[in-house]
Amino acid sequence: MTSEQMTNDRIRFDEWGLVPAVMQDGATGEVLMVAWMNEEALRCTEETGQAHFWSRSRRELWHKGATSSNFMNVREIWVDCDADTLLLKVAPTGPACHTGQRSCFYRRLA
Amino acid sequence: MTSEQMTNDRIRFDEWGLVPAVMQDGATGEVLMVAWMNEEALRCTEETGQAHFWSRSRRELWHKGATSSNFMNVREIWVDCDADTLLLKVAPTGPACHTGQRSCFYRRLA
Repeated sequence: MTSEQMTNDRIRFDEWGLVPAVMQDGATGEVLMVAWMNEEALRCTEETGQAHFWSRSRRELWHKGATSSNFMNVREIWVDCDADTLLLKVAPTGPACHTGQRSCFYRRLA
Repeated sequence: MTSEQMTNDRIRFDEWGLVPAVMQDGATGEVLMVAWMNEEALRCTEETGQAHFWSRSRRELWHKGATSSNFMNVREIWVDCDADTLLLKVAPTGPACHTGQRSCFYRRLA
């Protein structure tokens, strides 16, 4: 990866004001989960250094780890070529998945 | 990751019949791109062993590499806990990004 920089105001949120965000363990490279961010979630993520999302089911801002204490400390945020998807390199303080698995991707397609 | 298995008919496509799919280089762990799959794209991916997507802009099945020759040979497909996101471990034959970058995530958020 090169390291061109870009700014928040160039992120292309979709018609619901959302972009998908991939969480990747910055140390191991493991892909942990995919969730959605709106502008507020991205701003809170940058301000606190911990991943915040928009919960589409609960329709509310979601500070990942607020109830489980399994926070995602964000080291780097990358933006894709279309500026409509984010990649966050994180240091998780516990399992990403509500099932207790380290990654939400614990099942393989047969 | 554990290796529970699941089958295609349990994938929860959204109201447009789509799921996001994360491409990860199976050798390096690098996250290459995120694109969308419908049922047909997933079936074509499984049948050919090369990633197929649904192009939301062109509204057509998209065999990644058909024009660029930069195919994504798929080694493993993983499914997340909600069964609404896929993770594909791939061996790319060239850059994932139309810009020529290896990964679409070549810009860092300032």
